[in-house]
Amino acid sequence: MTYRIEKDLIGTLKISDDDYYGINTERASRNFKLQTKKTDLDFIKQVARIKKAAATANEKVGRLSQKKAEAIRLAVTDILADKLDNQFIITEIQGGAGTSTNMNVNEVITNRALEILGHKKGEYQYLSPLDDVNAGQSTNDVYPSAGKLTTLIKTNKLTLSVATLIDVLLEKSEEFAHVQKMGRTQLQEAVPTTLGNSFKAFASGLTRCLDQVQKATQQLEILNMGGTAIGTGVNTSDGYDEILYSELKKDYGRNIRQAEDLLDATQNLDSYVLFSGSLKALAVMLSKMSHDLRLLSSGPKSGFNEIELPAQQAGSSIMPGKVNPVIPEIASQAAFEVIGNDATITFAAESGELELNAFEPVIFHNLFESVDFLNSACAMMATECVKGIQANVKECADDVKNSAETVTDLTPVIGYEAACDAVKKSLKTGVDVYRILKDEGIYDRDAEVGDLDRAQ
Amino acid sequence: MTYRIEKDLIGTLKISDDDYYGINTERASRNFKLQTKKTDLDFIKQVARIKKAAATANEKVGRLSQKKAEAIRLAVTDILADKLDNQFIITEIQGGAGTSTNMNVNEVITNRALEILGHKKGEYQYLSPLDDVNAGQSTNDVYPSAGKLTTLIKTNKLTLSVATLIDVLLEKSEEFAHVQKMGRTQLQEAVPTTLGNSFKAFASGLTRCLDQVQKATQQLEILNMGGTAIGTGVNTSDGYDEILYSELKKDYGRNIRQAEDLLDATQNLDSYVLFSGSLKALAVMLSKMSHDLRLLSSGPKSGFNEIELPAQQAGSSIMPGKVNPVIPEIASQAAFEVIGNDATITFAAESGELELNAFEPVIFHNLFESVDFLNSACAMMATECVKGIQANVKECADDVKNSAETVTDLTPVIGYEAACDAVKKSLKTGVDVYRILKDEGIYDRDAEVGDLDRAQ
Amino acid sequence: MTYRIEKDLIGTLKISDDDYYGINTERASRNFKLQTKKTDLDFIKQVARIKKAAATANEKVGRLSQKKAEAIRLAVTDILADKLDNQFIITEIQGGAGTSTNMNVNEVITNRALEILGHKKGEYQYLSPLDDVNAGQSTNDVYPSAGKLTTLIKTNKLTLSVATLIDVLLEKSEEFAHVQKMGRTQLQEAVPTTLGNSFKAFASGLTRCLDQVQKATQQLEILNMGGTAIGTGVNTSDGYDEILYSELKKDYGRNIRQAEDLLDATQNLDSYVLFSGSLKALAVMLSKMSHDLRLLSSGPKSGFNEIELPAQQAGSSIMPGKVNPVIPEIASQAAFEVIGNDATITFAAESGELELNAFEPVIFHNLFESVDFLNSACAMMATECVKGIQANVKECADDVKNSAETVTDLTPVIGYEAACDAVKKSLKTGVDVYRILKDEGIYDRDAEVGDLDRAQ
Amino acid sequence: MTYRIEKDLIGTLKISDDDYYGINTERASRNFKLQTKKTDLDFIKQVARIKKAAATANEKVGRLSQKKAEAIRLAVTDILADKLDNQFIITEIQGGAGTSTNMNVNEVITNRALEILGHKKGEYQYLSPLDDVNAGQSTNDVYPSAGKLTTLIKTNKLTLSVATLIDVLLEKSEEFAHVQKMGRTQLQEAVPTTLGNSFKAFASGLTRCLDQVQKATQQLEILNMGGTAIGTGVNTSDGYDEILYSELKKDYGRNIRQAEDLLDATQNLDSYVLFSGSLKALAVMLSKMSHDLRLLSSGPKSGFNEIELPAQQAGSSIMPGKVNPVIPEIASQAAFEVIGNDATITFAAESGELELNAFEPVIFHNLFESVDFLNSACAMMATECVKGIQANVKECADDVKNSAETVTDLTPVIGYEAACDAVKKSLKTGVDVYRILKDEGIYDRDAEVGDLDRAQ
Repeated sequence: MTYRIEKDLIGTLKISDDDYYGINTERASRNFKLQTKKTDLDFIKQVARIKKAAATANEKVGRLSQKKAEAIRLAVTDILADKLDNQFIITEIQGGAGTSTNMNVNEVITNRALEILGHKKGEYQYLSPLDDVNAGQSTNDVYPSAGKLTTLIKTNKLTLSVATLIDVLLEKSEEFAHVQKMGRTQLQEAVPTTLGNSFKAFASGLTRCLDQVQKATQQLEILNMGGTAIGTGVNTSDGYDEILYSELKKDYGRNIRQAEDLLDATQNLDSYVLFSGSLKALAVMLSKMSHDLRLLSSGPKSGFNEIELPAQQAGSSIMPGKVNPVIPEIASQAAFEVIGNDATITFAAESGELELNAFEPVIFHNLFESVDFLNSACAMMATECVKGIQANVKECADDVKNSAETVTDLTPVIGYEAACDAVKKSLKTGVDVYRILKDEGIYDRDAEVGDLDRAQ
Repeated sequence: MTYRIEKDLIGTLKISDDDYYGINTERASRNFKLQTKKTDLDFIKQVARIKKAAATANEKVGRLSQKKAEAIRLAVTDILADKLDNQFIITEIQGGAGTSTNMNVNEVITNRALEILGHKKGEYQYLSPLDDVNAGQSTNDVYPSAGKLTTLIKTNKLTLSVATLIDVLLEKSEEFAHVQKMGRTQLQEAVPTTLGNSFKAFASGLTRCLDQVQKATQQLEILNMGGTAIGTGVNTSDGYDEILYSELKKDYGRNIRQAEDLLDATQNLDSYVLFSGSLKALAVMLSKMSHDLRLLSSGPKSGFNEIELPAQQAGSSIMPGKVNPVIPEIASQAAFEVIGNDATITFAAESGELELNAFEPVIFHNLFESVDFLNSACAMMATECVKGIQANVKECADDVKNSAETVTDLTPVIGYEAACDAVKKSLKTGVDVYRILKDEGIYDRDAEVGDLDRAQ
Repeated sequence: MTYRIEKDLIGTLKISDDDYYGINTERASRNFKLQTKKTDLDFIKQVARIKKAAATANEKVGRLSQKKAEAIRLAVTDILADKLDNQFIITEIQGGAGTSTNMNVNEVITNRALEILGHKKGEYQYLSPLDDVNAGQSTNDVYPSAGKLTTLIKTNKLTLSVATLIDVLLEKSEEFAHVQKMGRTQLQEAVPTTLGNSFKAFASGLTRCLDQVQKATQQLEILNMGGTAIGTGVNTSDGYDEILYSELKKDYGRNIRQAEDLLDATQNLDSYVLFSGSLKALAVMLSKMSHDLRLLSSGPKSGFNEIELPAQQAGSSIMPGKVNPVIPEIASQAAFEVIGNDATITFAAESGELELNAFEPVIFHNLFESVDFLNSACAMMATECVKGIQANVKECADDVKNSAETVTDLTPVIGYEAACDAVKKSLKTGVDVYRILKDEGIYDRDAEVGDLDRAQ
Repeated sequence: MTYRIEKDLIGTLKISDDDYYGINTERASRNFKLQTKKTDLDFIKQVARIKKAAATANEKVGRLSQKKAEAIRLAVTDILADKLDNQFIITEIQGGAGTSTNMNVNEVITNRALEILGHKKGEYQYLSPLDDVNAGQSTNDVYPSAGKLTTLIKTNKLTLSVATLIDVLLEKSEEFAHVQKMGRTQLQEAVPTTLGNSFKAFASGLTRCLDQVQKATQQLEILNMGGTAIGTGVNTSDGYDEILYSELKKDYGRNIRQAEDLLDATQNLDSYVLFSGSLKALAVMLSKMSHDLRLLSSGPKSGFNEIELPAQQAGSSIMPGKVNPVIPEIASQAAFEVIGNDATITFAAESGELELNAFEPVIFHNLFESVDFLNSACAMMATECVKGIQANVKECADDVKNSAETVTDLTPVIGYEAACDAVKKSLKTGVDVYRILKDEGIYDRDAEVGDLDRAQ
């Protein structure tokens, strides 16, 4: 294998001629050794797209030649086409506030562009990762901007899977619209409702949570680009910001805009806490629903047994014929991860100091994972669980018939105290509560029209 | 002391004739013994205001006589005027999903109203806490509705104190607009900025956080009233909802409205998680700023020493003349509480089951505390800390003069590599970086106009 | 009212002659305004007991006259006898790393001692809160030492209530030893067990958790006393440490000892995180058990309905005769508080800087609350819930009879696959699984002795 | 490619003849789609080692033929030798409480053993993954047992890296033993100490934390094996437990033993919360030290600047010559992950229901990551950071010289108030505090021997 020698602040290193990354990447890959995945390629691609927009802006303001800018853009195209995926070798969690990821992309673009320009890798005199590809930029603005754009893109996927789950729930809600069942508060029978109502409530909750997640993404459209070092904008050229944002808006098709106070945007990371909070609310809703589905399908004989989940796999290595609610179980575990990630994000955001928060890498790592996990969990829930749920109509109906709490709607007529006494007696003796009311001359259901259907 | 005998599902109890609360309250006060404060009187008052609105609605639909309704309204007036404060004796954290607090208010209103009507306490045949004062209601709808209204009211106070803090920060930002200082990333010198910029960034961050908290309150305007048991609306009268909400809107002057899916609103508590998340983002911002103020004022000699906080109290029982940043320290501790409260709220919200979340009391307990603590912390920071901060102008200026990183803005001119070498030499030898650049013939500052003022 | 004038670093203040506290206390009470309770009197008393031991040590090494030392001891006796409770007016969460609480005790002791010595309050020339009562001490060593001792004392109470709960569970375990029931994994029927086993498992879990809490208290026996400022021991007299620890050991009767590395002990607060972790494990166990009790008693008709919890109060303001599991509900809420407190403690401990952690007050506030809440929750669970639980023997037996999973113990005989097919058929057709096995000639239960009793 | 057809509860699937895993594995890999890594091979290997021990035990009690047992043992040997790594295809986080991982190992062992026995994969009539390889076992006992053993093995590695870090810190402590510096409380100068003391305090803290982690591992030596379904021990043979544990003890060389209450051990997961708590305490200590190192090295000019960390990589893409504390930064981020993981573990442990906790997979996922991350972080801190730290002796000495707080040790001589006045004057006027004391005739340092060296 042949090598080139690259130089940095610390000294020199040999870099294989096969590799597009350079000395900054190599050092970082040696420095950071947490057992975690390499930087998300979605993230790498957003850094690259920013580099492309910056190259165009720098070209238009006369800071980069058309030739250099075009080479940079072509190199970015290769990255976006997954041609250089193996060149991004640094773990997502890293020291240095993201400088290594920014430099990894700078170096890969530069060396690919050098090839395009007919030079050899490492001939940085013709195109510099620092002076050209990074021109008018700093990790301080590139890294958070790319992280926000990545989160937006991942959230688009999440939106689709939550929407699918909501649709399936609404279908079930209609399917089960006429299945009468007991509602329960504090796990004790309350008043009648329908199974359709239960699924509709899940759908309503998820709809609200998704809506809030989407609202929270608005903060992520406000980028740091143009701020460079600590948000001062040092080393940007006149006119650069406008062109850059116009390019980004074109590329992303959202209300991408520059933060009004770039120093604030560089140092204060509350927006990630807020966004993570919206994901956590969604996770809480998802997990609560998953618990409910496990509870309603508990049995198969001696539990609530009101619904049946589709069997996905054999449930036990020792107990024959056992089927377990594996999909709601993994959905709740995804939610627990999101909740843990929120704790990590909060810690990292609170630990920022002065003009920069050095812990942004761990924030993005957790934010990306939270969105990805929720995305998968909702997709699994929709197609592998909710879609196939069946109602145990008879069990549901029996529950209503057997419950004394159905007299709740009589209290405006007979008074709370009389109703209470009847329920107590019914529970003690096992005699039907309406029979007791009739025998005691308090109320005769057969002579009236119950308004039980209110519950529907 | 004289007693009356009251009766409930379990049996009978003696209640002192001095007390307006009844048997349900008495039992609850014996059952729940966590060492925590009694239910927040702000909360009690919102329950009472709901009772008043419900009485009016029930009167107008013909379910309550004018006499009864009026007595209820008068009793509520007494509660709002703090005349019955000592009658609310149940701790805020309680089992039973809030039933005890609802019944405490029902009983106090009833017995006070009975007096007003010329009856004795406990003569529930003339006015019933269950059939009359609670008519058309359930703890399932009253308790969460009152909790949301309480949170709104507390958040109004928080808004004022955050706004005051922002104002003081902006004043300081102007006062310090011309104090040049080094910005730092990762605690290492970065590029110059001004102290004014630093305070402006704090203000910008808090402004954003406050804005998000206020947006999050919109969810809290959506109430459960009318849902009664599990959201079915069982036992409400025709026309009741409309009048009730019209009364509430009049009383609260906000966009108070009924949840579209009342079953969902009863069982899914993600909105509190979301709201708590917005408080947590504010807490993170507040604590980060507090840390920064402590850092910038570290010293008094051998630290950053760029600002001086007003002395609030003697700092040590052993070290003479020591002054400590006690206000930022308590602000951060308030923030840590908010973060811990968020964990509790998340746990409680996720643990809801089926048609009701039994853990709403602990959610409100934590939500109220978070808002109250942030309110106080921001008020303390504004008046006892930020207002009196003074700049150490000379120290700030010296930092800029001594730092080699000020050549950052030369890199577009001389290239990153040349600049890097000069900084390295300067740090090693102690020679000024501009002198090195001049001596090596790279750049002569005296011959040029630096654009250092960009940083301002 | 008459006043005296006191002086400190900042200036002078009027202090009412009725009050034993002085200017440091007064300033602190004005500075710190979080809506939280005053410093726990248990905590105040341990500070006072340390002051007493220090007075004796200082007397014996010749630093304090016998007269002064005796007056200090008498003043401490008054504090321990609750005679000066209203003089401790500072909130538990405070800036200044506990200096205010230390000074509050110093001042109250001094002024009470001055009276005992025949002087007036404020005549500090005869006895000084700083030079005498605080002699050889610093908040840096007094505050954490007192906090640890307080936690030990509170944990003693917790130990009793957990032990009581374990006893009650073991009684129930014996009472229910012969109640056959289905065990469930993932809420689906697994293999038979007994209700006695279920209660024994709760007892076993709590026993382990309590054991771990007690082990964790060992770290709390290691005190900071003698470290004074940052753990250097500056200003202590020769021989003081030995006498002081001998006094404390005598007073507390535990293995109280000095930290080996006092600087470490002053600045690194991991031990509180560890201790809180042990409380959190107990909380998790307690809440899991509470959830199980709610689940097993769900119904009263259409749930698991295997046990009945004692009715503690009426369960609803609208639904007559409803009884809810209010005690397990408050126990889980106490657990959620402990979990949130752990988050706060972790944040505060991690935020320590250099030679001191300024956030110790919020750590103690949360630690105390966690121990107190668990104490109360376990006591409530023992006496108001577990003690009165009754088994629904028939329901439990029916569950076993109806479940197909009881064939698990046949798999070694007939093979997993054959058993699996039979269970599947049974669930589909409703025919008893043993009938299917017999009809298909696989296994005839009547001809064999089942080893079902293994499950007991 | 050729296929075999396998059958399970749900139906049949084609499995490639190249693959050793079977239908249970294939279904699980299709079911569980969170974007997370495959099950840790350390974990897989401990499951395999348990299978080997169980095969031997079953052989000795006469349940498995010598031939079958030997084939199983040989297949396990292949797994331990990394020959079948690509056959473990299920993600670590999974529904089904670990059944899929247990079955994955059962199937791979079976099919490899079938080959060894001269049969084809899938010919389960000769060796069954359920009746033979899983004989006397259940996921309920295998999965937690393997998870505990994995955690023990990972913790062994962690122990080594923490011990290395402690050693390096102690070396630095000696190297810096004579470097006088100011200690700081609340970031304000307190009393003098030495840099050696600072590093010793780090070492002391880490030593304590490591000790606690090791104590916490004792709980992990208590295994579930022999409990099978829900801890009843159903389907184990007489004598099996004794042989199995004797084999495991031999293999692992620790105090491996059976839980006394196997139902408790199956359902109550507080021990993981406790263990995670001990990791969290270590993480807090590590992060606090990392913050301190960043703070002490802040500068390079205008910060604390008392030490210099070794430069690991260029610190900025825009600011030339900047070096950042990247290793402490990643160490803190590892700690934040551990803290977030603890939240997830707590949630999962608290959510267990009845006889099993379905969420054990996410617990192990987080537990493993926490141990791995702390291991790497400590290793990085030792070799890439602490080892190369240099003291700025002059800066440290100047800080002591310039600080007025050095008069603290005079207070027993001159009284707190006099000392306080002098410090105040010194800070206001800039005049040396000892000069003031001398001029005012209070104290003449030149005439006395200071006991400043106490601080050492």
